[in-house]
Amino acid sequence: MNERNPHAPNGDWSPDEFREAGLAAIEWVARYLERLPELPVVPPVAPGDIAAQIPASPPEDPEPFDRLLRDLDEIVVPGVTHWNHPGFLAYFGITGSGPGILGELVASAFNTNGMLWKSSPSTTEVELAMMGWLRDMLDLPSDWFGMLTDTASMSTFLALAAARESVEGMDVRREGLAAPGYPRLRVYASDQAHSSAEKACIGLGLGQVGFVKIPVDAEFRMRADVLAEQVAQDRAAGWRPLAVVATIGTTSTTSIDPVPEIADICERESLWLHVDGAYAGAAAVLPEMRDAFRGLERADSYVMNPHKWLFVPIDASAFFTRHGDVLRRAFQLVPDYLHTTDDAVNLMDYGLQLGRRFRAIKLWWVLRTFGVNGIRERIRSHCRLAQLLAGWIEEDDRFEVAAPVPFSTVCFRGRWPECDESELDRRNELLAERVTRSGIAFLAHTRLEGRITIRAAIGNLRTDTSRIESVWRALRSTHDEITRVGATSAQGESR
Amino acid sequence: MNERNPHAPNGDWSPDEFREAGLAAIEWVARYLERLPELPVVPPVAPGDIAAQIPASPPEDPEPFDRLLRDLDEIVVPGVTHWNHPGFLAYFGITGSGPGILGELVASAFNTNGMLWKSSPSTTEVELAMMGWLRDMLDLPSDWFGMLTDTASMSTFLALAAARESVEGMDVRREGLAAPGYPRLRVYASDQAHSSAEKACIGLGLGQVGFVKIPVDAEFRMRADVLAEQVAQDRAAGWRPLAVVATIGTTSTTSIDPVPEIADICERESLWLHVDGAYAGAAAVLPEMRDAFRGLERADSYVMNPHKWLFVPIDASAFFTRHGDVLRRAFQLVPDYLHTTDDAVNLMDYGLQLGRRFRAIKLWWVLRTFGVNGIRERIRSHCRLAQLLAGWIEEDDRFEVAAPVPFSTVCFRGRWPECDESELDRRNELLAERVTRSGIAFLAHTRLEGRITIRAAIGNLRTDTSRIESVWRALRSTHDEITRVGATSAQGESR
Repeated sequence: MNERNPHAPNGDWSPDEFREAGLAAIEWVARYLERLPELPVVPPVAPGDIAAQIPASPPEDPEPFDRLLRDLDEIVVPGVTHWNHPGFLAYFGITGSGPGILGELVASAFNTNGMLWKSSPSTTEVELAMMGWLRDMLDLPSDWFGMLTDTASMSTFLALAAARESVEGMDVRREGLAAPGYPRLRVYASDQAHSSAEKACIGLGLGQVGFVKIPVDAEFRMRADVLAEQVAQDRAAGWRPLAVVATIGTTSTTSIDPVPEIADICERESLWLHVDGAYAGAAAVLPEMRDAFRGLERADSYVMNPHKWLFVPIDASAFFTRHGDVLRRAFQLVPDYLHTTDDAVNLMDYGLQLGRRFRAIKLWWVLRTFGVNGIRERIRSHCRLAQLLAGWIEEDDRFEVAAPVPFSTVCFRGRWPECDESELDRRNELLAERVTRSGIAFLAHTRLEGRITIRAAIGNLRTDTSRIESVWRALRSTHDEITRVGATSAQGESR
Repeated sequence: MNERNPHAPNGDWSPDEFREAGLAAIEWVARYLERLPELPVVPPVAPGDIAAQIPASPPEDPEPFDRLLRDLDEIVVPGVTHWNHPGFLAYFGITGSGPGILGELVASAFNTNGMLWKSSPSTTEVELAMMGWLRDMLDLPSDWFGMLTDTASMSTFLALAAARESVEGMDVRREGLAAPGYPRLRVYASDQAHSSAEKACIGLGLGQVGFVKIPVDAEFRMRADVLAEQVAQDRAAGWRPLAVVATIGTTSTTSIDPVPEIADICERESLWLHVDGAYAGAAAVLPEMRDAFRGLERADSYVMNPHKWLFVPIDASAFFTRHGDVLRRAFQLVPDYLHTTDDAVNLMDYGLQLGRRFRAIKLWWVLRTFGVNGIRERIRSHCRLAQLLAGWIEEDDRFEVAAPVPFSTVCFRGRWPECDESELDRRNELLAERVTRSGIAFLAHTRLEGRITIRAAIGNLRTDTSRIESVWRALRSTHDEITRVGATSAQGESR
């Protein structure tokens, strides 16, 4: 059988078979990383193109490994949007760095489920140690409880679940939200907050009416005065204000909500303060950036994503709260088959999901491979590239910067003074699309004050000055092209 | 800079640096898999032992890769519970198989987020294609919508969120659960159902009062008659019965709820039927097992976990529903920066989490490497090993089988006719502990009808007849030892 004979047909690959396939896979990945800069960032495919090449049913019989690699090249890569590409400037630029990729390899080989301490002590203890490292690097209060979740969506869900659990006079865990006499709860965030905050409210049963968007100022920061008014109004109308989600680095413009003022309101009104630093959180590693994080130490919970700007492959979100006990009260549920007698931390008690991968290895490996100084240099260089691009844009009449650039993301628009707003929108959409279609960079757009705005989000370790120079060249020549033929005919052309 | 000079200090590893570290990592993993059978399954460590070896702060400067590998050996492995070990018989036996491990490697290198079709077409399309393969292999209705989530906890959460959304006369997404006049909702599952069903009810705001445990029959199957009574009573008392979670392969005993009878009740009472086949679902690949899945085609939603018994590394849970439209209605929320114009499926619309890894590659690679016939042989051989062990237990007076063995998990107890129940519990606990401490196998226990019961869950591709023989030898000799000295003195000894 397979322990005696490693080539048993009923077992896994033998170690030698693993070695052989593994070496081929590493070579494949190395070549992929090598040729990334030459691949188009966004693939020129239509919905269904990739699926059409995959058989409708699985094979009855085994296929050799080289065929799997061949299909990566022939089927998968032509349909991948390359998030690891130096020209990936959409959403937030991220990096699955080398040490992070290999950390995932090892985690998959362990294949542990760190639901309990006992179900794999190293899985829990390396994770808790890494949360300590993050607290240290990012200057977070040393007594915050921290754990890794998959995504900021989940971290924010857990934050608001803990908030829900913390309300005096309600026992939501036991009685649910619809118990007789319970008030309806409301969560507040700016209209620039990430959609995951509203989704969490839907998931938690508060509904969209339980989520209120607070308007922002001219720099896209939550208006604390409006927040205070809204909370007072809601209380008067019978709502129970529950929590505020403040953002340091909003998704569209990376604006920074006034956390100290919001914390004052939360304190006065007994509201849970959750801070979303999913993207910008990594910048706290820079002493010169600490000002952006003022007031954070007063938060009840916090999320920052190592898989965003800390070079760790997706997924890894770091969730912190000063109220680990409340979080555990919200979620601890121990069936007989998971009962243990040790007094260790069982991370399943702090969340919705029982299954927990060994995510901490990749974070450990990335932090040690680059070192904190190396992380600082990398984040600094991304901020510098953003300033460079923003500077060029500011100096060119054909373009305008659309929002302050506190981190590594630049929001801008092409200017055509002769056009009305809807034509401007069409032209800017076309501008981003054309540069993206050229393959040199993936530029996505958002809407700011109703107007289409292009974003360049720098966060990939392969993005360098020459790439940003090429993007800038492409933006200018595309602007000129659009000026020549207008948006409508240009769209026609490109079909 | 780094595109021109791959060794730029601000960039990622160069492809050659990746190659070198990658080959070392593959060799490390190959050796790990090779020596697994000799490692103790459960490490002899106490809480804090591992953490004590990790510095409190991250290093300021880079560390070389060989030091990371050295620390795997010196710090991590001694504290890992080896889920990939042939003697891992606790919880559910699982395998992170070779092709699955390499699939994760490649997915991490792509580092895509498949939130939108556009954000990586291959990520969405390979995933949807794999859901088609699973439908095909497992004989599921071809019109079910399917997607991968991280865990069965999340799949069940989504199922019950969709159920909550489907209630006529309520608009939970918009209004939440506490809108005036809304009835309180209740979900039903057997007292053997997985804790994630109750946790989902807590998360969704139904509360624990919104989750009712239905008793089971002598073979640990939900009593459909009691379910029907409870639903009628609750309706009379003003509750709105919402959904039933039926399980095919419960966690303690792998019992099979009477899905056809439960489906009748759900149909009559307009309840959402969610079926949890997280563990046993893979067995539907065997024609001779299809009977266990009778009635499944009538479910509203279904979960089975490729990361349990389908040899895919954690995490990967397959979630199916016949009501993809309802699921999307529950969760679709498109911010400006994620607005697209194509008519493709955007998987972020179907769940709580925005971030979605490229999980489908590992599933694709496992299914192709083994082929459906190979998967069948492997699952069959696990079921055969379970029957072998159950047969030995049945024939030995010192032991008893505690529940039917429909799949690959055996529940049993040591017998000591001279002992009362509490002494029996102590002795069985000690029996499992001692065999586990010997390093040969990890046996966990549960409680059945209040009594400690040992479980041997076979699902690892390295588990073979000789391993089960050794476990059986260890069980018998440990039983004899405990008989000689009794549980109390034996526990004293082992300190």
